Amino acid sequence: MGHRIADIAKALGAEAFGDTARVIQTACEPATAGPDDLALAMSPAYGPALKEGRARAAVVWSGADWQALGLEAAIVVPRARLAMARLTRFLDDQKIGGAGVHPSAVVAPDAEIGDDVGIGPFVVIGSGAKIGAGSRIGAHSSIAPGVVIGPDCLVLDGVRLRRKVRIGARAILHPNVVIGADGFSFVSEAESNVERARRDLGNAEIVVPQDATWHRIHSLGGVEIGDDVEIGANSTIDAGTIRPTRIGSGTKIDNLVQVGHNVIIGGDCLISAQSAIAGSAVLGDRVVLGGKTGVADNITIGDDVVLTGATIALSNVPPRRIMMGYPAVPIATHIEIYKAMRRLPRILKDAAAKAKMIQKVDKSD
Amino acid sequence: MGHRIADIAKALGAEAFGDTARVIQTACEPATAGPDDLALAMSPAYGPALKEGRARAAVVWSGADWQALGLEAAIVVPRARLAMARLTRFLDDQKIGGAGVHPSAVVAPDAEIGDDVGIGPFVVIGSGAKIGAGSRIGAHSSIAPGVVIGPDCLVLDGVRLRRKVRIGARAILHPNVVIGADGFSFVSEAESNVERARRDLGNAEIVVPQDATWHRIHSLGGVEIGDDVEIGANSTIDAGTIRPTRIGSGTKIDNLVQVGHNVIIGGDCLISAQSAIAGSAVLGDRVVLGGKTGVADNITIGDDVVLTGATIALSNVPPRRIMMGYPAVPIATHIEIYKAMRRLPRILKDAAAKAKMIQKVDKSD
Amino acid sequence: MGHRIADIAKALGAEAFGDTARVIQTACEPATAGPDDLALAMSPAYGPALKEGRARAAVVWSGADWQALGLEAAIVVPRARLAMARLTRFLDDQKIGGAGVHPSAVVAPDAEIGDDVGIGPFVVIGSGAKIGAGSRIGAHSSIAPGVVIGPDCLVLDGVRLRRKVRIGARAILHPNVVIGADGFSFVSEAESNVERARRDLGNAEIVVPQDATWHRIHSLGGVEIGDDVEIGANSTIDAGTIRPTRIGSGTKIDNLVQVGHNVIIGGDCLISAQSAIAGSAVLGDRVVLGGKTGVADNITIGDDVVLTGATIALSNVPPRRIMMGYPAVPIATHIEIYKAMRRLPRILKDAAAKAKMIQKVDKSD
Repeated sequence: MGHRIADIAKALGAEAFGDTARVIQTACEPATAGPDDLALAMSPAYGPALKEGRARAAVVWSGADWQALGLEAAIVVPRARLAMARLTRFLDDQKIGGAGVHPSAVVAPDAEIGDDVGIGPFVVIGSGAKIGAGSRIGAHSSIAPGVVIGPDCLVLDGVRLRRKVRIGARAILHPNVVIGADGFSFVSEAESNVERARRDLGNAEIVVPQDATWHRIHSLGGVEIGDDVEIGANSTIDAGTIRPTRIGSGTKIDNLVQVGHNVIIGGDCLISAQSAIAGSAVLGDRVVLGGKTGVADNITIGDDVVLTGATIALSNVPPRRIMMGYPAVPIATHIEIYKAMRRLPRILKDAAAKAKMIQKVDKSD
Repeated sequence: MGHRIADIAKALGAEAFGDTARVIQTACEPATAGPDDLALAMSPAYGPALKEGRARAAVVWSGADWQALGLEAAIVVPRARLAMARLTRFLDDQKIGGAGVHPSAVVAPDAEIGDDVGIGPFVVIGSGAKIGAGSRIGAHSSIAPGVVIGPDCLVLDGVRLRRKVRIGARAILHPNVVIGADGFSFVSEAESNVERARRDLGNAEIVVPQDATWHRIHSLGGVEIGDDVEIGANSTIDAGTIRPTRIGSGTKIDNLVQVGHNVIIGGDCLISAQSAIAGSAVLGDRVVLGGKTGVADNITIGDDVVLTGATIALSNVPPRRIMMGYPAVPIATHIEIYKAMRRLPRILKDAAAKAKMIQKVDKSD
Repeated sequence: MGHRIADIAKALGAEAFGDTARVIQTACEPATAGPDDLALAMSPAYGPALKEGRARAAVVWSGADWQALGLEAAIVVPRARLAMARLTRFLDDQKIGGAGVHPSAVVAPDAEIGDDVGIGPFVVIGSGAKIGAGSRIGAHSSIAPGVVIGPDCLVLDGVRLRRKVRIGARAILHPNVVIGADGFSFVSEAESNVERARRDLGNAEIVVPQDATWHRIHSLGGVEIGDDVEIGANSTIDAGTIRPTRIGSGTKIDNLVQVGHNVIIGGDCLISAQSAIAGSAVLGDRVVLGGKTGVADNITIGDDVVLTGATIALSNVPPRRIMMGYPAVPIATHIEIYKAMRRLPRILKDAAAKAKMIQKVDKSD
């Protein structure tokens, strides 16, 4: 089939030059592109690679002299990553099954299945669950009784939605996601060492408890997820205790992320892979967490905060801060401390040398 | 249906006051509670929220003047979290399927299924496996041949139990848990760079190996899990090499936790989300690991140790210590080091300024 | 059944002494070994345990006086871990199902299933997928249309292979692995705070965006995996954007590992549990990542690099370095900094004391 350069440019909201009737089959990196591919060369850094490859058409950076680059057709984009979003969406031929219920699926008779819903093989849907119009449920997913899924959602293979989970419109849940499992919430008969340590900031004496049994606090609150949320493969979002754990509309969560019970996450956040947000923490809107970040329980991260990769926030962060380190400090402070630490071994060595010298001089007196 | 205040108080082992015949439907946060809800206001901090909401009955802190708070009925509890455990247990109406084997399940003819066992849709149970009386096996779980599950266990959807896994009574395994997968254990023909680095504490020269092939050490030892253990969603517990990986009774493990091959974990431990315990490490009894903690391979963590969130233990920790940091040090030491680090940039700047001043004075002489 | 000492020695390529016709049933730790077991005592440290147990046959270290240890038969090995690889392989009686397609499996009519392939219960295999000869597909796995799996692979239960995934020969994919899910790649209409922060190294002012919507960059590139690769339980390998994410032959990946979109991993690497490699990072050959390590996006880690446990690499690492810390530095530097930090609180205290003393002396003048 292929796509005309003119049509691609239109989808990108960009201008096309040269032989815009040219048809390309797929998008490629400049160096490996063939004559029927569309090379992606959105910055001058890709110029040499373009010449290395055999592309005759490319998406190029604003200001590129496409003819000098040996191209017959070019699409010029001002913002490379945004163009990538539009282009990959245009080229995506992913078809996640059609409508209809696979005969092997076990769907409760009183579940409400909307129009044009597709339900894959071996799916289990419990009593009273509701699946919104146009949604697709991948193979091997299990949807507990009473769960509500909005319209046009994509729930991929092996996803587990537990009781009292409610999901808005257009969610994408990647394979093996678990939403609404019980929170990790246990209590001992008498005050535990952890409670004591928290109260005394670590100065408490650890005692061996008489009764070390952990009593479970059940999770009755479920999970509420807004519209346009995406949750990555094998991530886990725990149920709240008596009110729902909440994830705001437009928030995107990566793979292997843990969201604890009672957490509240605002809208339009980005939560990167292997991050963990501990129980009852609150994240504002548009918060960005880098990979492997941690947010301690019961703290608040303000709107528009950025925690860079591997940062561990142990206390509240005011809005609009860029934080780094373990424990998290403003990035400028982190760099300052880090530079000082790097100098420290040499300084201590110099100081020791100076002290010895002074001692020698003293003795020679 | 609802519950009488008097019955709830009885379940909590607590005293009730006022209109104890009053019926409530569910528990709520104070600010959002309606007239038929039981507000949870277990500390004076919730007083204002109670007045904001419309609750007429509440669980309140010891010493609260419940009538002055506008309530018609109150349950007074001395220890809030413990009351939460009892209350949520009382209110929990979760029914994890009934007894019986779903017709779609594939159960080996020689598997031993106890009385009153429930087996969900699409479950696979291998030859010779034993499921204890009263246990429930959720949809899509796969239980390898020979696996033994004790009585009254809850094995939720998509759990994978591999060969030689033995689990005691009353375990709760959350969705997509994997127990008994092969340990991560590989060896090269000649000594590897990692072995060399460990031997020489990092001073070894890295060499490019002649034969870089990794040979697999198979995991023949399985996993043995005690009674009353809970394991969180998407966590992984690897099989031991020639003897089982062991988890003691009463230990609770959160989501996305990794327990390596040959690890021994004592009883009544709490292991929070995204923690990892590397191969052959030993944890004593009642150890508490905060979220994102790491325990290096082949080390021992003593009884009653607490590792706070994101702590990385690289060497043995004696019993009854509270540790923090990467690498882990006693929490007091960590705070001391951290404070010094925070002061360091300013001190170095001052020192530099002083040095310059002295130089100037010297020159002016 | 059991195995003759002579046969085991042969499988290990090692020498046997004493009663080599003796038959043992299984391998055991020295202290718990019975008379029909083969005790594993590959270093002198196990001497006392050997005497404690009741083993009559053992695998012992090079130079051991096996008769003095009370044994009737012994296998002598020069390299313990290598012997473990061969011995556990010899003793492994794991049979992962037989050949044939389980009647419950849903296999597309045009999928190409090789000779001697075994497909378990409730497996779903999409249109045009190819499964190489001798491979085994565990229960509940889902293989997307067009996926290619080489010969003699082991794809265990609940594995999800998404579109455009290609896997070489002899791969082992542990339960609930997800390969080829969409990359975590989003872009906002205008430059985002994260882009700004990166450009200005954290000095940028955070602004509240007018339009905070995240636009998705679709993942069209799939994943390409070489031969002899192993991937641990619940790990996730994301699809590339326009070209595949790549994992080289012989590389072994542990549990709960995240490999981001467009990442390239060389051959014969070892990636330990809970590591994360962010988007577009490149790892050379024979790289070893300890547990919980992180590699930032778009950086390069050279051949034969070792990152010790919990190390976070934020910038390029040249070949043959052993790195440690957050951020990663050469291990010698890390130890030096760490020692200086440990001394720092005392030094600052001393300095303060000295300053006070000098002040006093000054005043007494």
